[in-house]
Amino acid sequence: MADQYVQNPVGSEPSKLPVLRWDEPPEGPVLVLLDQTRLPAEEVELVCTDVPVLVRAIQTLAVRGAPLLGIAGAYGVALAALRGFDVDEAAELLETARPTAVNLGYGVRLAASAYRTAVERGADSEQAARAALAAAEELHRRDAEASRLMAGHGLALLDELLPGGGHRILTHCNTGALVSGGEGTAFAVALSAHRAGRLQRLWVDETRPLLQGSRLTAYEAARNGLPYTLLTDNAAGSLFAAGEVDAVLVGADRIAADGSVANKVGTYPLAVLAKYHHVPFVVVAPTTTIDLATPDGSTIEVEQRPGHEVTEVTSPQSAVAGAGSGGQTVAPLGTQAYNPAFDVTPPDLVTAIVTEEGVLSPVTVGGVAELCARSRQVTIS
Amino acid sequence: MADQYVQNPVGSEPSKLPVLRWDEPPEGPVLVLLDQTRLPAEEVELVCTDVPVLVRAIQTLAVRGAPLLGIAGAYGVALAALRGFDVDEAAELLETARPTAVNLGYGVRLAASAYRTAVERGADSEQAARAALAAAEELHRRDAEASRLMAGHGLALLDELLPGGGHRILTHCNTGALVSGGEGTAFAVALSAHRAGRLQRLWVDETRPLLQGSRLTAYEAARNGLPYTLLTDNAAGSLFAAGEVDAVLVGADRIAADGSVANKVGTYPLAVLAKYHHVPFVVVAPTTTIDLATPDGSTIEVEQRPGHEVTEVTSPQSAVAGAGSGGQTVAPLGTQAYNPAFDVTPPDLVTAIVTEEGVLSPVTVGGVAELCARSRQVTIS
Repeated sequence: MADQYVQNPVGSEPSKLPVLRWDEPPEGPVLVLLDQTRLPAEEVELVCTDVPVLVRAIQTLAVRGAPLLGIAGAYGVALAALRGFDVDEAAELLETARPTAVNLGYGVRLAASAYRTAVERGADSEQAARAALAAAEELHRRDAEASRLMAGHGLALLDELLPGGGHRILTHCNTGALVSGGEGTAFAVALSAHRAGRLQRLWVDETRPLLQGSRLTAYEAARNGLPYTLLTDNAAGSLFAAGEVDAVLVGADRIAADGSVANKVGTYPLAVLAKYHHVPFVVVAPTTTIDLATPDGSTIEVEQRPGHEVTEVTSPQSAVAGAGSGGQTVAPLGTQAYNPAFDVTPPDLVTAIVTEEGVLSPVTVGGVAELCARSRQVTIS
Repeated sequence: MADQYVQNPVGSEPSKLPVLRWDEPPEGPVLVLLDQTRLPAEEVELVCTDVPVLVRAIQTLAVRGAPLLGIAGAYGVALAALRGFDVDEAAELLETARPTAVNLGYGVRLAASAYRTAVERGADSEQAARAALAAAEELHRRDAEASRLMAGHGLALLDELLPGGGHRILTHCNTGALVSGGEGTAFAVALSAHRAGRLQRLWVDETRPLLQGSRLTAYEAARNGLPYTLLTDNAAGSLFAAGEVDAVLVGADRIAADGSVANKVGTYPLAVLAKYHHVPFVVVAPTTTIDLATPDGSTIEVEQRPGHEVTEVTSPQSAVAGAGSGGQTVAPLGTQAYNPAFDVTPPDLVTAIVTEEGVLSPVTVGGVAELCARSRQVTIS
């Protein structure tokens, strides 16, 4: 296990490091990640030379976001294969690194399946590893394309729901280029509305405990010149009450067969607020996020994260990927914390699900099944 | 303007400094506050020798909480009078230090009125100042008594709403001994349930941005041996969805004539969640928090606080009362933040208002007026 940091100097106009890239220097293949725990303070690349380093990057949220986790998982399998590690073992490690996002397992199984199929067809280990890499690259490319399609479908939906433009959109967590092979999910829709001159304001929830909104969505919004305002998650209620939210756009980590949506903790309270104020609540996610093997919300496993994320506050400058806590304690010593990473929003609170295959509204079991059938999602043996 | 810090060493069993105390050392009268910006890291007293220091303590939240602000304001008037400052000017400064909590203005006017009445009756300035001090001491004493009565009425209400005990109570912000002459408002009810053996769990919202839940409620809960668990404000939705919340108990900063409740930002989303999940939502506040001059929620002025409270995170150790920010930046430079200190919950979301005069349920205009009429609240000329 070894990792290394490559740091770019951060100036007033920071360089545009890719969120994830595959590289094959003379020392051997590597998966290079933009370390999201350091943003927005500094843009640092984390070089993964093997799967345990990648697993740690996934667990510490150096790499995160449902679609990107799928891509990272697929490349991780290719990395293990090309470096001669046991592919089944690597796939098992990667698939169980975090439990909630279905895309991670999907990407891992996709690349592992490509590897195995190649082996069964008589390929040598280098050829089989290349097949896994090709599957990862194909997933990466398809995810970028899915972003582009979701942005288009999402904007059309906004225009239909809110004729006249001047959209004031509330979003939660981070769902932009940092979670995707392309421009993201929910954020890509807001970006598309901005480019079309129809975004009046992006309200950005800070998203405690790990502040993905303050650190990452604000960073992406600032970079893209969006009119945005940050708020504590608590203050969203006041915006709804004042009639300042026209629609809520969020991503998803897993969508069950009945349309229940697991997403970053804090999504469900927003869905309840949106319902109470008759504001559309829209989920934007590629069809790879739909898991027909999960029948409903009650069967979605929600990751419980360490209490220190709540009892301490950590600034991005002091965060070192993989170092665990290192934050400043705010609660009395010995305080126990409840820290679910996700919550589950039932389908009756979801106005629409926007995928690369189109928009599902209302959200029904039949509609979800049909979306999946229509999807060009690769079937995994 | 001068202030000074008196620090007690913090051991494993910290000393019990009073939240607010009046003292008259040979150097002259002072109002001594427990600096709440330093908790739970250290217990430090802030000595106010004049009104500008007290105003600063109020604005930086070194002293906070609606009932306590009323008491502090009343003592502030006495302090100005005894030290020979202009009482009208001091009253004006204090009353406008923070706009939302009605108790602050109430306490200030009560002491100022006592001063003026004494002057009109021929008292000299020392005698008039002593009359203001007596009014402050009386308010202090009455508030402690109100706490005791609210705790009793609140527990009776809980037992009625939730027969069988084992109460799992969710609370927001801080409403214990740190906000009151006695044991507080909502927290005093939870404490009373705990002493009666009927509190199964106190769920403590961290209460961003200033973390009064993590820093202050957890501190009071730990001190009193309550079974408590801390959570991000975001995670409350998951608790409701899991059926883990039997009732919500919060305080109030101003209650309008129609029963609308201004309280710490994040209260309104909890009220909406409670309604959606058919969980009782109970407001606990002394009748001094009711403001019949404010007809409804739309006329309550909500304090907007600086954006740096959201774009930076500050740990209590690094907080210096009055120093402004000093936190670690988490959002990109230049990020604009929306930071209302309070929100307003309409009466139809409030199951009951618990006061020292008894319980109002349902919350109606007539009921609020009757509570005020019944109250032993001193009428101010």
